[in-house]
Amino acid sequence: MSDLSPAVEFARQNSRRFLDELLDMLRIPSISTLPEHKADIERAARFVAEDLKRTGLENVEIIPTDGHPMVYADWLHAEGKPTVLCYGHYDVQPVDPVDEWETPPFEPHIRNENIYARGSSDDKGQVFMHMKALEALMKTGGGGLPVNVRVIVEGEEEIGGEGIEKFLKENAHRLACDAALVSDTHMFAPETPSLTIGLRGILYAELEARGPRVDRHSGSYGGASPNPIFALCQVIARLKNEEGRVMIPGFYDSVKAPSDAELASWKTLPFDEEEYRKEEVGSVELTGEPGYSVLYRTWARPTLEVHGMPGGFTGDGAKTVIPARGRAKISMRLVPDQDPDEIFRFFRNYVLSIVPKGIRMEVRKIHAAPPVVVGTDNRFVRAAADAMRGVYGKDTVMIRAGGSIPIVAAFGTHLKTPSILMGFGLPDDGAHGPNEKFNIPNFHKGIESVIGFLENLGQ
Amino acid sequence: MSDLSPAVEFARQNSRRFLDELLDMLRIPSISTLPEHKADIERAARFVAEDLKRTGLENVEIIPTDGHPMVYADWLHAEGKPTVLCYGHYDVQPVDPVDEWETPPFEPHIRNENIYARGSSDDKGQVFMHMKALEALMKTGGGGLPVNVRVIVEGEEEIGGEGIEKFLKENAHRLACDAALVSDTHMFAPETPSLTIGLRGILYAELEARGPRVDRHSGSYGGASPNPIFALCQVIARLKNEEGRVMIPGFYDSVKAPSDAELASWKTLPFDEEEYRKEEVGSVELTGEPGYSVLYRTWARPTLEVHGMPGGFTGDGAKTVIPARGRAKISMRLVPDQDPDEIFRFFRNYVLSIVPKGIRMEVRKIHAAPPVVVGTDNRFVRAAADAMRGVYGKDTVMIRAGGSIPIVAAFGTHLKTPSILMGFGLPDDGAHGPNEKFNIPNFHKGIESVIGFLENLGQ
Repeated sequence: MSDLSPAVEFARQNSRRFLDELLDMLRIPSISTLPEHKADIERAARFVAEDLKRTGLENVEIIPTDGHPMVYADWLHAEGKPTVLCYGHYDVQPVDPVDEWETPPFEPHIRNENIYARGSSDDKGQVFMHMKALEALMKTGGGGLPVNVRVIVEGEEEIGGEGIEKFLKENAHRLACDAALVSDTHMFAPETPSLTIGLRGILYAELEARGPRVDRHSGSYGGASPNPIFALCQVIARLKNEEGRVMIPGFYDSVKAPSDAELASWKTLPFDEEEYRKEEVGSVELTGEPGYSVLYRTWARPTLEVHGMPGGFTGDGAKTVIPARGRAKISMRLVPDQDPDEIFRFFRNYVLSIVPKGIRMEVRKIHAAPPVVVGTDNRFVRAAADAMRGVYGKDTVMIRAGGSIPIVAAFGTHLKTPSILMGFGLPDDGAHGPNEKFNIPNFHKGIESVIGFLENLGQ
Repeated sequence: MSDLSPAVEFARQNSRRFLDELLDMLRIPSISTLPEHKADIERAARFVAEDLKRTGLENVEIIPTDGHPMVYADWLHAEGKPTVLCYGHYDVQPVDPVDEWETPPFEPHIRNENIYARGSSDDKGQVFMHMKALEALMKTGGGGLPVNVRVIVEGEEEIGGEGIEKFLKENAHRLACDAALVSDTHMFAPETPSLTIGLRGILYAELEARGPRVDRHSGSYGGASPNPIFALCQVIARLKNEEGRVMIPGFYDSVKAPSDAELASWKTLPFDEEEYRKEEVGSVELTGEPGYSVLYRTWARPTLEVHGMPGGFTGDGAKTVIPARGRAKISMRLVPDQDPDEIFRFFRNYVLSIVPKGIRMEVRKIHAAPPVVVGTDNRFVRAAADAMRGVYGKDTVMIRAGGSIPIVAAFGTHLKTPSILMGFGLPDDGAHGPNEKFNIPNFHKGIESVIGFLENLGQ
């Protein structure tokens, strides 16, 4: 077709090589949380740096952090044009339970138009789309790009991303840009080009309850000694009511509802609640606040969950201990305009106001990230939506995601820029689980979408 | 003193040797729960068997079980006299945390009139009192005993005692007796001869709650997926009210209060609630049902505790999982006339009636033992109380214990005999913990008390 840009034509002609190169990247077991993979992490960083160098990006640098290094590169000669920061990560999750993989996690296999490998969807396959889009543009653009580009690829996303957060705080100017492009999200459904324009924030906390000085036997002391695990259950049961409404005073005060237009647009999305219950959640019923749809509840309503309760006896069989202490891992998902610091104060005050008799309670914040919403009325969102519509031949849908991507909030805080969350994963990719996959047509369409996005911005 | 029996004189003359022999027994690390100590278990069984043989008991046999062996012996030639079954166990608890021991757990050390060693109080020191009392009686009684005696020393008490329970069911006639003598309990306080005449029963159960089919991310699914850990907290919080009263319908229906005389006798015991709170429990407040004393609450009121909640994320840091399943370990201490089977039905029905939305719940019984009370108006209790009063020069107090000794209930069920719980441990002996100790004067007085008990019965 004559209206294809040279860069897209280049990408199509080189699609086989692009895929082969991605398979090479996927063979590197760059698991960030396991110290024994330190050398693989470094190998993956070099893989990214060398590819960017070959493409012709400048100032390519492997930047050390206190943990794993980041790869930086730029090309900043498009005078008068905006600057886009392409973000991704080259580290991956562990592969447990490894027995459940049909093919080995670091030996990519292709079946049914999917690449099966750890990191294929999260996030090597997606960050590599950025890299190959830049290559196609550079090779067909006379050694230049339609806009200014910075690239940052970190190696600690799966373990909290401390290095890049610190770098952002201390060196914001080195990542200065007009918008960030983040491809670490999902499409709403197959063949449905999607931009994620909202993310929930998170507040992760830990309660520690102390009762008797040392572990005590429930035979001798049951009826006199306070029990920290029972006390935690009492407190947790009062955090949400039976309908799923959070009972912390003030919790909902600053919640801002999505616009009527946004809510209306969600109703047009292909979503079958019964199928979701059965196939995705697999529970006998769904839960959550009455009066809100599933998408509303998981995208734009704040929630509270307990994740686990360390302490006491958790082995098989029976032990009759009243433990000296117990803990509970609790997180809240936050929505605009909830402020994590304020919510933590509300949470802490409420918990301390309902501590059961005989218990000393500590409330600790583990980490937090604010919620994110991207306004849709700007050139970056339009350029991205148009590019994806062009590639998929369908209107781009604007969705939210229930999860949190702390780096997106950090870009907002430190760079004062919006993030364009243009993701090409599919809901069943199984990131973090066994048999993670990435759809190959989406890999190629993702490259073309990124090319289109940068070309649109350069016009 | 001329009114000492020859057996007591023998015991006093041989006290040094008796102690040395006990130290030898304590050097055997017969930890029943650790397979690597299998040979030590067998060594401890042989130690007991050989000692009983030397004493002159007959039919000494190491009886195999599906687990660890029991040692049996008897002497049944006291025609017309009652038969006493001396019970104890030669197995011990593990020694973790081993760093907290001041001297190694299997190298007995003597400090401040105490023997420090694993098993010194629970139960080698106490079972050895029986063995040495029999020796003293036999050596001074012309090769005979004042009553008929059977001895059974098991090696699985610390791991549930399945072998002896099975043996009791199938071979009750081999342990036929008029009373059992069990020395595996405490004195109420130092220099306070004590008979334990009541034990709480136990019902140990496990709840398993299932929510989503597989572990789910709280970002994507929080607000729609049921959370089994939260559901367990909701259920557990409804098992007891804030005052500590169990909310299971029917739970208290068959609770029988102690007699006024028994309650009055508890008020004469040396007990300081504030000291107990501070020194023993070490909590900021005590808990339990209002209107009942600490002794009443821990001895004669039923209680319910949660011991631990396996499932979800229990490591350090943060993981945002809504787990597919979670469990809770729950036990109830039962008092006369609560029936464990009936209480389990009440518990199960109640839990299943309050299962939160979206959760599938299973309620499993792990083990149970009925409560025990020993009538005080019988020759066995009188013989024991008199013997201890003679040795300590103080009236014997009748107490209860909050814990459960399943074998005592089993003796009642299968042998139809009362158990005389004549214990010489002290409340601070630290059985099951580091630096377990046994008071040496109590070891010798225990031997004399057992001698007196058997002599009294033989009169």
